[in-house]
Amino acid sequence: MNTIGKILTLTTFGESHGPAMGGVLDGMPAGVDIDLDLLQCFVDRRRTGQHMGSSMRGEKDRVEVLSGIWQGKTLGTPIGFVVRNTDARSADYEEIARCYRPNHADYTWDAKYGIRDPRGGGRASARETVARVVAGGIAVQALNRLGISIEAHVVQVGPRLGVAAEEQERLVAEAAKDGDTLGGIIECVVRGVPAGLGEPLFGKLHAQLAAAMMSIPSVHGFEYGDGFDMASKRGSDVMDLFVKREDGSIGTATNHSGGIQGGISNGEDITMRIAFKPVPTLMRPVATVDREGNPMTLQPRGRHDACVLPRALPIVEAMAALVILDNYLIKKTNVL
Amino acid sequence: MNTIGKILTLTTFGESHGPAMGGVLDGMPAGVDIDLDLLQCFVDRRRTGQHMGSSMRGEKDRVEVLSGIWQGKTLGTPIGFVVRNTDARSADYEEIARCYRPNHADYTWDAKYGIRDPRGGGRASARETVARVVAGGIAVQALNRLGISIEAHVVQVGPRLGVAAEEQERLVAEAAKDGDTLGGIIECVVRGVPAGLGEPLFGKLHAQLAAAMMSIPSVHGFEYGDGFDMASKRGSDVMDLFVKREDGSIGTATNHSGGIQGGISNGEDITMRIAFKPVPTLMRPVATVDREGNPMTLQPRGRHDACVLPRALPIVEAMAALVILDNYLIKKTNVL
Amino acid sequence: MNTIGKILTLTTFGESHGPAMGGVLDGMPAGVDIDLDLLQCFVDRRRTGQHMGSSMRGEKDRVEVLSGIWQGKTLGTPIGFVVRNTDARSADYEEIARCYRPNHADYTWDAKYGIRDPRGGGRASARETVARVVAGGIAVQALNRLGISIEAHVVQVGPRLGVAAEEQERLVAEAAKDGDTLGGIIECVVRGVPAGLGEPLFGKLHAQLAAAMMSIPSVHGFEYGDGFDMASKRGSDVMDLFVKREDGSIGTATNHSGGIQGGISNGEDITMRIAFKPVPTLMRPVATVDREGNPMTLQPRGRHDACVLPRALPIVEAMAALVILDNYLIKKTNVL
Amino acid sequence: MNTIGKILTLTTFGESHGPAMGGVLDGMPAGVDIDLDLLQCFVDRRRTGQHMGSSMRGEKDRVEVLSGIWQGKTLGTPIGFVVRNTDARSADYEEIARCYRPNHADYTWDAKYGIRDPRGGGRASARETVARVVAGGIAVQALNRLGISIEAHVVQVGPRLGVAAEEQERLVAEAAKDGDTLGGIIECVVRGVPAGLGEPLFGKLHAQLAAAMMSIPSVHGFEYGDGFDMASKRGSDVMDLFVKREDGSIGTATNHSGGIQGGISNGEDITMRIAFKPVPTLMRPVATVDREGNPMTLQPRGRHDACVLPRALPIVEAMAALVILDNYLIKKTNVL
Repeated sequence: MNTIGKILTLTTFGESHGPAMGGVLDGMPAGVDIDLDLLQCFVDRRRTGQHMGSSMRGEKDRVEVLSGIWQGKTLGTPIGFVVRNTDARSADYEEIARCYRPNHADYTWDAKYGIRDPRGGGRASARETVARVVAGGIAVQALNRLGISIEAHVVQVGPRLGVAAEEQERLVAEAAKDGDTLGGIIECVVRGVPAGLGEPLFGKLHAQLAAAMMSIPSVHGFEYGDGFDMASKRGSDVMDLFVKREDGSIGTATNHSGGIQGGISNGEDITMRIAFKPVPTLMRPVATVDREGNPMTLQPRGRHDACVLPRALPIVEAMAALVILDNYLIKKTNVL
Repeated sequence: MNTIGKILTLTTFGESHGPAMGGVLDGMPAGVDIDLDLLQCFVDRRRTGQHMGSSMRGEKDRVEVLSGIWQGKTLGTPIGFVVRNTDARSADYEEIARCYRPNHADYTWDAKYGIRDPRGGGRASARETVARVVAGGIAVQALNRLGISIEAHVVQVGPRLGVAAEEQERLVAEAAKDGDTLGGIIECVVRGVPAGLGEPLFGKLHAQLAAAMMSIPSVHGFEYGDGFDMASKRGSDVMDLFVKREDGSIGTATNHSGGIQGGISNGEDITMRIAFKPVPTLMRPVATVDREGNPMTLQPRGRHDACVLPRALPIVEAMAALVILDNYLIKKTNVL
Repeated sequence: MNTIGKILTLTTFGESHGPAMGGVLDGMPAGVDIDLDLLQCFVDRRRTGQHMGSSMRGEKDRVEVLSGIWQGKTLGTPIGFVVRNTDARSADYEEIARCYRPNHADYTWDAKYGIRDPRGGGRASARETVARVVAGGIAVQALNRLGISIEAHVVQVGPRLGVAAEEQERLVAEAAKDGDTLGGIIECVVRGVPAGLGEPLFGKLHAQLAAAMMSIPSVHGFEYGDGFDMASKRGSDVMDLFVKREDGSIGTATNHSGGIQGGISNGEDITMRIAFKPVPTLMRPVATVDREGNPMTLQPRGRHDACVLPRALPIVEAMAALVILDNYLIKKTNVL
Repeated sequence: MNTIGKILTLTTFGESHGPAMGGVLDGMPAGVDIDLDLLQCFVDRRRTGQHMGSSMRGEKDRVEVLSGIWQGKTLGTPIGFVVRNTDARSADYEEIARCYRPNHADYTWDAKYGIRDPRGGGRASARETVARVVAGGIAVQALNRLGISIEAHVVQVGPRLGVAAEEQERLVAEAAKDGDTLGGIIECVVRGVPAGLGEPLFGKLHAQLAAAMMSIPSVHGFEYGDGFDMASKRGSDVMDLFVKREDGSIGTATNHSGGIQGGISNGEDITMRIAFKPVPTLMRPVATVDREGNPMTLQPRGRHDACVLPRALPIVEAMAALVILDNYLIKKTNVL
């Protein structure tokens, strides 16, 4: 249940204020060159303290690879890795143990397990995503060698669409000043995917991508191609007509389908959009209840992002990479 | 890859014009009363010829249960079932074998397997959903005994929101008259789900629901709770404050979260919306290419829906039922 | 839990006296020629009434393929199939519903599910193996095209080793005359397997083969290569020294390892032995208890084999074929 | 492929001379008391240097739990752990990189992956079992709380049966003096298992146990109950007749079935025997070939056990514990 993927599988572990986060990436093909410095750079894109309105928690997030890569190459064996938690300040979170923060997982966690680690949100903290980024960063390098690239960018912050980086920071700062937070939308494009990836039924490529993206903390919606807009169109408006390209291959003149038809990639760019809710931790007093349901007021504390979108970009790319590479491997088994 | 679920698993098979569609529902608990007449009624809701603009293919869709249910009760053994294809007219589809229909899976299927059954779309036909509805209908009956109910309804047809049934039919008829088709949005509500279902990480309840819904043919988007609207809001706008109910239990005053927090159900109604693209088969000539990429014109033929939404309602409910019941069973393993 | 395999998966269903046995073979590569007459012949090898001491139940065991094979070729889609139960005489089994037969699954089934189908043993009947043989027979045909062949033979009946077919029949007839039954040992050899199949850790090729063989009804032991004899030897006695073959390839001079080293095939013949317990149904009165634990005597009835080994040969071959083909496909994913 | 289990899953990683071995135990129920000192004691039973004829490699094998256990209780989250490799002397192994040791996995590994870590056998080293013992030790503690206990003991060393500890050491020393090695047989008994665990078809309890035991390095055979002896008996010889016990429960007078009938536990002791081949590394020159197939002589070096059986006892217990606890959890899902 902490594992994703079929051939290429990622299993992660770690609580926010435990000794370390980590994971096991299994099923990576053997003999793939992996540049660990490049991997660290990819992971660093997710770190805090780099963006306006991001948490002040100062984790170094040094990736320690424990197995599966030797002399710069994958061995075909599972890649175990850890990222130490070095800047956990658990004192900040003691109150949380006896109350339920709204729009957090405190209540549901208790309902499920009857026990939870309240320090920094425990495993429900978005800190778990560091393990996704490590594994995804490895998958990205493998995909790049196949000519496949992945790029995510913020296309909406709060109500504002198509915002430039500066504008983003201004909007987030504005909300943060009010002790408030913002959501937004990330678009992700995967280029260079060969036609034929994805499974026709329950494992449609977009269904796998949806599950992967919806598993990222705070995500509330997923669409691919023209997505929800498709619903309001007539069939004739969104028809991606086939064309014969100069090199003799078959492509489509438009890409309303987002590079996936019948759950299988068609060789066009894969496009998807992911909606994030605003961060649930406000920097102002919030009315809530304790474990017995009695009203109480929660005072703001801890170190939290006012908007997670900039930090979420490598997470989205990582999840896309894991799904695409897994399906690339699955496709190899479609013929004898 | 034709299987969904963890404890409760559904595996399906069948091509549109082969002898039969069918499936195996495994992991159903033993001793659950199943009413096969009620099941047939559930499956009948998906049949063609009942709605304006729906396909004229006249399948009876009689469910034949082959195992796993005896004397009206589940045995705990796999429930095998078939639904015969009795009204397949393969002659209609011969041209398809040598061309690629736009927005269909013909091209991608060839790219993946190098072979396909062109009769009626083969396995890429939405006819495969009959197996989902059979299995989901069994899950619905089990959930009902637990006090859990599921209801899907059409909330948008083409560009029109909140349409009544008559209005729906008129809009679809209008498009059909032009040889065109419509998409739309279905909302699904699950009531009575206890708090604590869903897995915190990759198996978030909404991630599983997203994968299940996105695997339905023609679906292009999924959101739960306030979904994409969440992205444009501030944190303080969408805070579901906790309240102590009269019976002493804890609930929330609002439900922007759609009944799921941190990937785990919180006891409120689970709400989600699913966007369907317009049916890709138009009843008018369409420009396309053959398998070598040469231009050709495809003449309209066959029997096709102009809008799938009314028939999709039981499919959406079926997929929701399978996911919820599976997670209900998984939760039993969270304590020793 | 009624599914086996990773890429190539078999899911089966069916109770002995229900309408049909059946299954879904998923993950078969596309474009493989399958001869359905040959498949029927393979399945017929498992039928009753062909061997001395075998059950008189006269099932025809006609295989009906419902999907996944078209015009003699696999489509890459799941292969659904059923085999009807046509000669079930449930009246024979009514007493069983209220008692527990020794060495059968009646008691354990009740302990697990609280309900069971007593007709012909329900799903606990060895009749379920017909679905394994259908699926395995398809896998055998695919393997044959790869130059891989599988052959099982009886090497022990009761206490007698290396028995010829006539001698076997005489021994079984002798036991049957006393209303008694016999066990024995089957050896299975897989030839032509390329080096490199199998997973190094939990999925060692022999671990997968062990699980597959031990899942066959009545099997009590599994060994590969020199097996249990290995335990009593010194390392120097069982060393399979490497040799360079005339064609330049590397092989071993002996094959104590049974074609598998470190869980991975080495290109030599894969050899294994499977021990079957004697059939638990005697043709004489047996003391037992009813569901409340009260003593009672069970009178012999029904139609039962006195020795299952001849009929088990295609079952063993089928299970071997499923495992080998699955691992053949998995190996394709070991490189990018 | 480095994962075992269904609800309770163990994923391991690590090469013999890499930085660390480790694993993730997922699916452990929440709220179970775990004594980490007791766990370390369990792991220490597997360490080298404690038995005659065991390797001189002096690993401390300190278990570092990184997640999933807090304040002495499981959280329901994945339990990540590492055991550092501190005494790896890779210089000993350089020759291995260019040759294939007989009865080792060097050749098959190259055939599979085209690359391998030759230091200490890489992932093919039995050092990987330390991760199994850590995870299994946690499962043992959970089982003990349920009244279930597991005990493995050596019942054969080389050709000698029923040997006492002193005699074992003498036999091993004798072989070691000749630069030779010994195999043997371990018996494992699980007491206190409730009736009803195990899946009737492919997941028979003994099939799962077989797969788990056969996945331990050097194991060549598995049997449960009377095992291979069953094959030479008549049905009437091995009938476990039912009896009503004084407390009203139903048991069997004998236990030829080894506590499992129809793949499901019947409440009697579960008994099984596991055959180990002799250690493949001899302490004398061995003729072999290099990667091109040219003959060469391999000189003895490194630190190796002359007989692994004493150290294998906790490994066998660990694997049994993982399987039994997993099936205990699965059984909870058999009713609604």
